[in-house]
Amino acid sequence: MNRNCALVSLALVCAAGSALSRADEGMWLISNPPRETLKTKYNFEPTEDWLKHMQRSVVRVGMGGTGSIVSPDGLVMTNHHVGLGAIAKLSTKDNDLMKNGFYAPSREQELKCPDTEIRLLWDTQDVTDRVNGAVKAGMSTADAGAARRKLISQIEKECQGGPGFRCQVVTLYQGAKYHVYRYKVFNDVRLVFSPEEVVGSFGGDIDNFEFPRFSLDMTYFRLYEDGKPYKPEHFLSWSADGAKENEPVFVFGHPGRTRRLYTVDHLKFLRDVDLPDRMERLWRSEVKMQGFAGKNAENARIAQSGMRGISNGRKVYTGLLGGLQDPELMGKKINSESELRSFIDRDGANAREWGAAFEAVANAQRAYRDFYAEKATIDAVVAGSGLLSRAFEIVQLADELPKPSAERLREYADPALPSLYLRLYSSEPLYDALEIERITQALSLLAERLGGDHPIVVEALAGQSPRKRAQDCVWGTDLKDPAARKALVEAGAAAVSTSKDPMLVLAAAFDPRSRELRKLYEDKVESAERDAYAKIAQARFARSGESVYPDATSTLRMSFGTVRGVARDNTPAFTEIGGLFARAQERKGEAEFTLPAKWDAAKGKLDLKTPYNFTADCDIIGGNSGSPTVNAKGEVVGLIFDGNVYSLTGDVIYDGENGRSISVDSRGMIEALRKVYNAGALADELQHK
Amino acid sequence: MNRNCALVSLALVCAAGSALSRADEGMWLISNPPRETLKTKYNFEPTEDWLKHMQRSVVRVGMGGTGSIVSPDGLVMTNHHVGLGAIAKLSTKDNDLMKNGFYAPSREQELKCPDTEIRLLWDTQDVTDRVNGAVKAGMSTADAGAARRKLISQIEKECQGGPGFRCQVVTLYQGAKYHVYRYKVFNDVRLVFSPEEVVGSFGGDIDNFEFPRFSLDMTYFRLYEDGKPYKPEHFLSWSADGAKENEPVFVFGHPGRTRRLYTVDHLKFLRDVDLPDRMERLWRSEVKMQGFAGKNAENARIAQSGMRGISNGRKVYTGLLGGLQDPELMGKKINSESELRSFIDRDGANAREWGAAFEAVANAQRAYRDFYAEKATIDAVVAGSGLLSRAFEIVQLADELPKPSAERLREYADPALPSLYLRLYSSEPLYDALEIERITQALSLLAERLGGDHPIVVEALAGQSPRKRAQDCVWGTDLKDPAARKALVEAGAAAVSTSKDPMLVLAAAFDPRSRELRKLYEDKVESAERDAYAKIAQARFARSGESVYPDATSTLRMSFGTVRGVARDNTPAFTEIGGLFARAQERKGEAEFTLPAKWDAAKGKLDLKTPYNFTADCDIIGGNSGSPTVNAKGEVVGLIFDGNVYSLTGDVIYDGENGRSISVDSRGMIEALRKVYNAGALADELQHK
Repeated sequence: MNRNCALVSLALVCAAGSALSRADEGMWLISNPPRETLKTKYNFEPTEDWLKHMQRSVVRVGMGGTGSIVSPDGLVMTNHHVGLGAIAKLSTKDNDLMKNGFYAPSREQELKCPDTEIRLLWDTQDVTDRVNGAVKAGMSTADAGAARRKLISQIEKECQGGPGFRCQVVTLYQGAKYHVYRYKVFNDVRLVFSPEEVVGSFGGDIDNFEFPRFSLDMTYFRLYEDGKPYKPEHFLSWSADGAKENEPVFVFGHPGRTRRLYTVDHLKFLRDVDLPDRMERLWRSEVKMQGFAGKNAENARIAQSGMRGISNGRKVYTGLLGGLQDPELMGKKINSESELRSFIDRDGANAREWGAAFEAVANAQRAYRDFYAEKATIDAVVAGSGLLSRAFEIVQLADELPKPSAERLREYADPALPSLYLRLYSSEPLYDALEIERITQALSLLAERLGGDHPIVVEALAGQSPRKRAQDCVWGTDLKDPAARKALVEAGAAAVSTSKDPMLVLAAAFDPRSRELRKLYEDKVESAERDAYAKIAQARFARSGESVYPDATSTLRMSFGTVRGVARDNTPAFTEIGGLFARAQERKGEAEFTLPAKWDAAKGKLDLKTPYNFTADCDIIGGNSGSPTVNAKGEVVGLIFDGNVYSLTGDVIYDGENGRSISVDSRGMIEALRKVYNAGALADELQHK
Repeated sequence: MNRNCALVSLALVCAAGSALSRADEGMWLISNPPRETLKTKYNFEPTEDWLKHMQRSVVRVGMGGTGSIVSPDGLVMTNHHVGLGAIAKLSTKDNDLMKNGFYAPSREQELKCPDTEIRLLWDTQDVTDRVNGAVKAGMSTADAGAARRKLISQIEKECQGGPGFRCQVVTLYQGAKYHVYRYKVFNDVRLVFSPEEVVGSFGGDIDNFEFPRFSLDMTYFRLYEDGKPYKPEHFLSWSADGAKENEPVFVFGHPGRTRRLYTVDHLKFLRDVDLPDRMERLWRSEVKMQGFAGKNAENARIAQSGMRGISNGRKVYTGLLGGLQDPELMGKKINSESELRSFIDRDGANAREWGAAFEAVANAQRAYRDFYAEKATIDAVVAGSGLLSRAFEIVQLADELPKPSAERLREYADPALPSLYLRLYSSEPLYDALEIERITQALSLLAERLGGDHPIVVEALAGQSPRKRAQDCVWGTDLKDPAARKALVEAGAAAVSTSKDPMLVLAAAFDPRSRELRKLYEDKVESAERDAYAKIAQARFARSGESVYPDATSTLRMSFGTVRGVARDNTPAFTEIGGLFARAQERKGEAEFTLPAKWDAAKGKLDLKTPYNFTADCDIIGGNSGSPTVNAKGEVVGLIFDGNVYSLTGDVIYDGENGRSISVDSRGMIEALRKVYNAGALADELQHK
């Protein structure tokens, strides 16, 4: 046996070992499920019909969540925390749906959500060759990136399959593949049921990402089309028996983003630059928003949904950063990369090109370091409030609209406009107090980060303190009125650029530098990464064939796994409704654990042994929230709403031993609907009775 | 009239105008009170006896607070939040004095505080010429600084006035004057009375720095000498009638630090570098400690005193940073500096030297920018926990002790050793859970700030995650036992450097770089600032004579002012005890506003009209906490515990129009002691009955 053979054998042994331990890993494309593993481990062979049925039953809710169609009348199941934005927009000082919950026993009582968009993935197509065909020999990396971006815009525009459909090109494997996805889009979405927030997110920040857990994190919407409930071709059935321990389950959803294929140097950039910067902004926002909310009850109410997002993000990134600071995790990444690079080194033909790609990624991160902080700051500032972000979009849109669609910044291209207008002209309530607070925070952040004498700071503050400037902008703007925003956009570039509206003037201060930084990023970082990762992906394909799943991209994926607890911590797979009352007692006196009176009243009627939440080792991440957990028959057994603390490193690595997805149990949902909320009609609709 | 005369007249007008508007400004040396202003405005001429009586009645409590001797038996009045460290150290899981309060009706029941030091300023002496005499012609700035530091150590050592006394050289005007202060030191300090924390800091973080206000932020200790209550020569009397609106009052205390004499460039360094960095660490700590405390009740208890410090610091620096980001404040600073520089320019003899000093300060800040973040991070890390900070001190002490006292780092010189040993060998409880949490936070901070591959990070983490490393160090160290710390220090340098104790090994990782950064700071920043500010101070003296007060330096000062509210907000000068109950009702259900049962029980007996808290425009800052507010007779009318929100810029500028000091009213203290706490004996002792 010669030396090369020995190395190859060793590599195979490693690969086999690692495949075994990662058996339930992966957020798989519906077009390329892990058929081998499913067959070997679960004796399950998904048919094309089964896959299509699942695809056409699962929806994307808003920008960052999942839902599923669960009745022939277009009922959509998702999480309370996914529906939260819509619920908060429907709430008023006098009827706070977040606090009180909501149930519409009849269609007429359902509440139309101001600007909620739900998308159903209709079909997909591989356009990799066409996108890459835009790159001509001899183009610089930056020019190649620009050419690809332009062609992507063109493909998206061409693909529009009639009214109510929208297309999006998805970059897979960080640049190795491009698919175009066509969605059916619903804009008439109505609220059917949501529990009180304290029930939906029982235990608040303290129990978030923990297990055992006792949350009824569910909300039901209904899709309407032409003013009538949507009649879907596909919808999910409800399991009669729910899930059992050790049963295989499947999760379909829209995981937002993972970075598992990042090189080690790229991960170090996350660890040392990106995440520390992000965490600093989150810690800052959390403390400042607590101060704002602490002033009075109305402040607390209007700040609530934003604050949940902040504390959730803080937990997510804390877990991820902790993982990246743990040499054990980083050691696995280093080993895995060095195995891949050994494979590449043995491949004479591509060794130089593929090997150089790793250095190209590192160089891109080195270039990014120089302007990362400034870009992250300005990006955060212009997204800093409901009014300022819309003013900034109006400013940019005015410049972009006159250009041909394919030459615009991608979010202002024709296919993106309907969603943009929905957000821009939303009747979502904008509260002066919250707007002033958030703009003050944004402007102080700007001054803290760039220094008080930086030209953008000087221009943005216009000789005032951050708070005074925020007050003037909020009190003096017309943009609080959606009609005024619409009128301004329709009046066009000249009207926008000559407007004296202080919020527009403020937003305009950021536009030039924001564009410069974006161009720098696209030319020096993104384009270089795309090129390099496309090569690294080729190496992965060469080594592992098609058994590599792409990183998550907020698009439809399938995960799978087994219902089970965590042996290391002796955590059970299931909790029961009785445990909810016990946990409330244990943390008595704390607001996040105080059950509404109707739960105490219903306690005697409830079967306290009803399964309430459960864990499985399915590979999920943020964006999967609201995903249906189904059995092999495709029936709903649960509703994904969280992961445990070990799952928080899932952004960069799958931990099948300890990481778990957490679902609300289908039986717990029905029990609560029937006995606590007196919502038998809704339960009947779910159970197709 | 020639041109120069016109300019001089104008300058006088400005000076007069500004003196008028800043009438009650200043934290004055007892040796140089603002006699003119006091006489003109209040018709008050403090005698030398009056001043000496006040000086010998006021004490410094611990490192950062003030108190006053208020009975012939050595009773000391201070704030609950100043005594908090001692109270927390006396608390246990089973008897939480923070939660329950404490009262010793007899001497035998008083509780000895583990390591509380109280200092009484005995006398002072100007040693400016001697310190500056150490600097020889031709010395570099760095060498001049080193020579001064060495001589200061020598002066402090020589001055020791027998056992129980301690000396400290104080740098005034950022380097223009040096005084040596001799203190009588008390180490036997016993707790007599403290209210429940919720009463002492009623309204918690929400009401902190606000007015109207309802806090009984008081605590009483007793000084002991040779095992018996200390019989002071001087102690304060209690006012029979308390203060009235518009009455002049005086505050004696130890304001910690102000930076009012900083140049504009130096303030910009604060605004753009120092404060943003500090705030980031505070936001981070606040969120992380909330997560720790949220886990269970015991965590909440052991984290409580640290968390108060964090949230207080966050409010202080938020206010200050907000002020520095406000062009109005900065505009005043720019004007005032340009007036001084115009004066300097007209002074032919010193114009070049004094003018160059401003640029020298700016250069020092430029040099500091290069290593500020690294130094601030490492300083924060080694101070990050009770165990780690002590381990670090043991490591440094081992290296320093063999050197002659004057050549050591100043905090390890002979005069500093008693306080150091007190802290180092304190029996203060150190909780594993809290230590692990704080060291984990410190090590992650290190990795976030310096990057995971930085040699110090690699050495400190020793191949582990921050949490695992923290656990190993806390679980594996012997240093939790004060006797072990003492034995190690006494065993000397060789024992320390060869110790395998993991906490020492961890601490030692920071020592070399910490020393390098300190030397860089002393040579490039501090020494240059001292030189430059000494010159700028000469210019100020030349322009304004002796009517310039030095920035606060944690040493005894006198402030003065008038009892009054804030006209702009229509805020009254006084609140009453009845308002406490109303505020509790208004924020019902919130822990920081929930009065103990004994208050509700006593409500019927209390005179609800009794003045409870009041505001005056005295110029105070952190460190003044616990200061007596006295009338012109030197009688106690109040107890300083806070400033209002407008006072938060006091670090850099005095705002006499809106900034206010807040005191507990002497009448409110007596009413609560007698009717709520059944502490008639203590009230009698205060009223000298």
